[in-house]
Amino acid sequence: MPLAMNRNVFITCAVTGSGGTQDRSPHVPRSPRQIADSAIDAARAGAAIVHCHVRDPDTGAPSRRVELYREVTERIRDAEVDVVLNLTAGMGGDMVFGSPEAPLPVKAAGTDMIGATERMAHIRDCLPEICTLDCGTMNFAEADYVMTNTPGMLRAMGAMMTELGIKSEIEAFDTGHLWFAKELVKEGTLASPALVQLCMGVPWGAPNDLNTLMAMVNNIPDDWIWSAFSLGRDQMPYAAAAILAGGNVRVGLEDNLFLDKGVLATNAQLVERAVTIVENMGAKVMGPAAVRERLGLTKRAPASA
Amino acid sequence: MPLAMNRNVFITCAVTGSGGTQDRSPHVPRSPRQIADSAIDAARAGAAIVHCHVRDPDTGAPSRRVELYREVTERIRDAEVDVVLNLTAGMGGDMVFGSPEAPLPVKAAGTDMIGATERMAHIRDCLPEICTLDCGTMNFAEADYVMTNTPGMLRAMGAMMTELGIKSEIEAFDTGHLWFAKELVKEGTLASPALVQLCMGVPWGAPNDLNTLMAMVNNIPDDWIWSAFSLGRDQMPYAAAAILAGGNVRVGLEDNLFLDKGVLATNAQLVERAVTIVENMGAKVMGPAAVRERLGLTKRAPASA
Amino acid sequence: MPLAMNRNVFITCAVTGSGGTQDRSPHVPRSPRQIADSAIDAARAGAAIVHCHVRDPDTGAPSRRVELYREVTERIRDAEVDVVLNLTAGMGGDMVFGSPEAPLPVKAAGTDMIGATERMAHIRDCLPEICTLDCGTMNFAEADYVMTNTPGMLRAMGAMMTELGIKSEIEAFDTGHLWFAKELVKEGTLASPALVQLCMGVPWGAPNDLNTLMAMVNNIPDDWIWSAFSLGRDQMPYAAAAILAGGNVRVGLEDNLFLDKGVLATNAQLVERAVTIVENMGAKVMGPAAVRERLGLTKRAPASA
Amino acid sequence: MPLAMNRNVFITCAVTGSGGTQDRSPHVPRSPRQIADSAIDAARAGAAIVHCHVRDPDTGAPSRRVELYREVTERIRDAEVDVVLNLTAGMGGDMVFGSPEAPLPVKAAGTDMIGATERMAHIRDCLPEICTLDCGTMNFAEADYVMTNTPGMLRAMGAMMTELGIKSEIEAFDTGHLWFAKELVKEGTLASPALVQLCMGVPWGAPNDLNTLMAMVNNIPDDWIWSAFSLGRDQMPYAAAAILAGGNVRVGLEDNLFLDKGVLATNAQLVERAVTIVENMGAKVMGPAAVRERLGLTKRAPASA
Ligand SMILES: [Zn+2]
Ligand SMILES: [Zn+2]
Ligand SMILES: [Zn+2]
Ligand SMILES: [Zn+2]
Repeated sequence: MPLAMNRNVFITCAVTGSGGTQDRSPHVPRSPRQIADSAIDAARAGAAIVHCHVRDPDTGAPSRRVELYREVTERIRDAEVDVVLNLTAGMGGDMVFGSPEAPLPVKAAGTDMIGATERMAHIRDCLPEICTLDCGTMNFAEADYVMTNTPGMLRAMGAMMTELGIKSEIEAFDTGHLWFAKELVKEGTLASPALVQLCMGVPWGAPNDLNTLMAMVNNIPDDWIWSAFSLGRDQMPYAAAAILAGGNVRVGLEDNLFLDKGVLATNAQLVERAVTIVENMGAKVMGPAAVRERLGLTKRAPASA
Repeated sequence: MPLAMNRNVFITCAVTGSGGTQDRSPHVPRSPRQIADSAIDAARAGAAIVHCHVRDPDTGAPSRRVELYREVTERIRDAEVDVVLNLTAGMGGDMVFGSPEAPLPVKAAGTDMIGATERMAHIRDCLPEICTLDCGTMNFAEADYVMTNTPGMLRAMGAMMTELGIKSEIEAFDTGHLWFAKELVKEGTLASPALVQLCMGVPWGAPNDLNTLMAMVNNIPDDWIWSAFSLGRDQMPYAAAAILAGGNVRVGLEDNLFLDKGVLATNAQLVERAVTIVENMGAKVMGPAAVRERLGLTKRAPASA
Repeated sequence: MPLAMNRNVFITCAVTGSGGTQDRSPHVPRSPRQIADSAIDAARAGAAIVHCHVRDPDTGAPSRRVELYREVTERIRDAEVDVVLNLTAGMGGDMVFGSPEAPLPVKAAGTDMIGATERMAHIRDCLPEICTLDCGTMNFAEADYVMTNTPGMLRAMGAMMTELGIKSEIEAFDTGHLWFAKELVKEGTLASPALVQLCMGVPWGAPNDLNTLMAMVNNIPDDWIWSAFSLGRDQMPYAAAAILAGGNVRVGLEDNLFLDKGVLATNAQLVERAVTIVENMGAKVMGPAAVRERLGLTKRAPASA
Repeated sequence: MPLAMNRNVFITCAVTGSGGTQDRSPHVPRSPRQIADSAIDAARAGAAIVHCHVRDPDTGAPSRRVELYREVTERIRDAEVDVVLNLTAGMGGDMVFGSPEAPLPVKAAGTDMIGATERMAHIRDCLPEICTLDCGTMNFAEADYVMTNTPGMLRAMGAMMTELGIKSEIEAFDTGHLWFAKELVKEGTLASPALVQLCMGVPWGAPNDLNTLMAMVNNIPDDWIWSAFSLGRDQMPYAAAAILAGGNVRVGLEDNLFLDKGVLATNAQLVERAVTIVENMGAKVMGPAAVRERLGLTKRAPASA
């Protein structure tokens, strides 16, 4: 009944996404080395978890080549600073339809719709402590694009994560995704307590107003652990919102490029600012060891190392 | 600040859906004549609006053949009892993927993904006063199925509805669908005030708990008109919930087959029960003429009549 | 996460209050015999609990004379129909201040501010299964009146109820009253799980909009049992609201005099209507024996009988 | 529908209250000079508004002597730094009852229940730009104490404030207080748009969980201006919560003595920290001139100056 604020907060840095952001800021890392360096800097600044995608080092286009993930993983694992590694498993669920008058066949460019085993190849290889599970299918801002993760696909991928001993971070972009996540736990596909990321204000998922946030938070089981983020200039406000509602924080260049209006940020700067907010609100920032204990994670070397 | 209850309530009867319900109850109408008769009975029982799909008269399978819609429309238009006609425009956005290990190519059986003009053919022909616009893309209970309505498709279909002078009933299955509906109005694709149907508790869309309902209701612009429903045994409770939150009611065999546990219902019986709830809560049931005035609808004959 | 509706609902009939309602409807019972008869009729109509105040049989003015409560209790106990008896303990906490320019001394007329033992005299004598505990101090619609129940008084009265083995029905007129109720349970003054009545829309307590209702419901511990009501024409809608939010129902002439606009009601008619709402929403109405089991109540004869 | 965050935030510093805090921290100012100095330091640190009570300079006990308010006012008015002055009008509504066994007569010590004109004497004399109106009657943590402001008293005091051209800051300690504030505006006693302070988590008013906060925020008319605060270690989190929900910030020694656990704060330090939170969330801190324009305030000299 009193404010159910989180007073021990972990910060995830989403280092680089799969969007076209790499051309809008020089700070968005492209190569495995750049991604690892930016992640390590973020860890030094206070991020307990780094969430990474990889990109083609030459073009900056999002990639799912295993060797790129491998290099990112090894560089981060070999760094002097400790950090929990969270790799995306979101690639490979992309449908781009034809025009509204001819939605099929899909467009080759942009469509990347592969099987569960292939989507999990880099996860199986790198064995990160956490990987993401985008828990549904939905429209985004693009006219013809659909992020496509069917219930069957989610059960298959979730089961693989559980079998590999990797904690799934459930990405809930709307209230129905959270509902399905609870179903996955109920079915035994994912272990309880689960880890959830509320992805708020991503068009056309859940809007990021506080009523919607609280409806989602009220629906998270008491013993689950969760985080929330929003995009652009709402990134830092959402650091505060997440803490207030009992959750953890995610910031980083995947979601927002700016420190202030017109001022491009680095990942480390965004993490520093989040740390400032957390600490000025009277909460403490958790380190990677404490996060591992709280989430029951085991740090491992890559599979074939 | 006081209870913002709706004291003038219209009831929509969703007469027959596209689900496999026709084999689970003899009361689910299949042929155009059966559908029209059931709709007319529902109107007599107090429904101001009837929402219709059509089915193959022989198999009961969902269909989008224009002549079936035409026959339903004409029979309802010719009936002695007046009622507002609402036809689905939801058909033709169905994707059924292959297995989780091979999502593409899609399965021919079940996949029906056609262009906007073709999806609107029966609407253009029948000119119902209202037709639905399923305002997003999402998973349903089936493992490999996705209800697929991209932003581009929704803009195209919405624009056609507006051009035809047909009121769009925005089906919002989750909070993001409602957000996109507001975008459609903001862009001018749909007229304001819009008409919304909150489709609650449909896996894997918004769950039907009251916190989630209220988050959605709080996000509906004050001058919009809305309705809400839920499925199965939550259908009648949701009649009450919708009224209490300021909305209107939808019941019918598309969403629920039972009057009581183990007792199969007719559409008319479900409407009667909704009327009982509305009236015992001290509200009035609106007739079709009042609904037309409130929603700015014009009753028309089919295009080629 | 799904609708947390209550499917086994008990109905309390608030038979006659302490307000000036007795002059506005001939159906508001005044004498102990009338009150008991009206309560018994309400029980026959489906109320599992009857909540009673007493009035001066001649004037209809609210009274706290023990012999009146005793007569009501005995008549109800002796009736053929079984019902759970709930007596008010709300009398004796009334302050009426002087004018805004001279609030003290208080006005003798209307001020009735007595000690805890005296406030509990009729409860100790009659040993009802339940008695009310108005869980705070607040303004009402009258300009100079204050319902006055200090924390010290509530602790004293609550402890007496617990010692007597009588279940306290905590009346929460605003969010702070519910908070204090949780404190009373935490301190051990009241047993857990507690029984709460949310009194919504009583000026100047909590307004009865659904957002406020849900904020209160979200703050009720999961294992507590609760009911909610509102006033006047919102009485029947609130029967539905309470069920939908997981609670139980209170109706009756203490809170509302009308069956329909301009049509004065009897208690039995109001209960009948509530039963209709409960049953049409697919829930069941609990009888007094089931309520006793659920609330852990013991039916007793008056102390000196 | 998007986050309705306030991006232009004013900070009120509540410099010194009427509680027994002056013995728990050497930083709680007592004398008019100390209060004014602390207020001025707070203004320099970024507070646009200073909210002041006065205390007996010798004992630190709360006082309502006009000459003390006058000295505070003049010192603040004469300072080099500009700030909006907000004086409490909360004194003089204090009832302390006898024991639960004998609530009347009230205890002389602690009871201070005076008429509206007398409660407004220092306001009439000092003509602050804002004064508070505690918008209801309720229990506090003390066993026998009641903060007593009847509807009649609130109408009388509110009318005086309006007549003097002083903006009322409505203190809403629970949802019912906000409801009554809307009544005062509806009646014309207070001007619209009104200014509200949501006082969250003060026992036994509204708890400070986010569901309750949002229920209150959802009930504030769109054009009103509001602020919110909570106590103790929830003070800084509530700075963030208020901004996120669209409101403004109050911090200060009236509500919280600590900067960090075990570290006593000055008013200026608390304001500095609030500024840090506001700015790191991407919002701007408003100065006193901008606040005057937004609230329609006029800076005046004391009446007899
Ligand atoms: Zn990502
Ligand atoms: Zn349909
Ligand atoms: Zn009562
Ligand atoms: Zn104050």
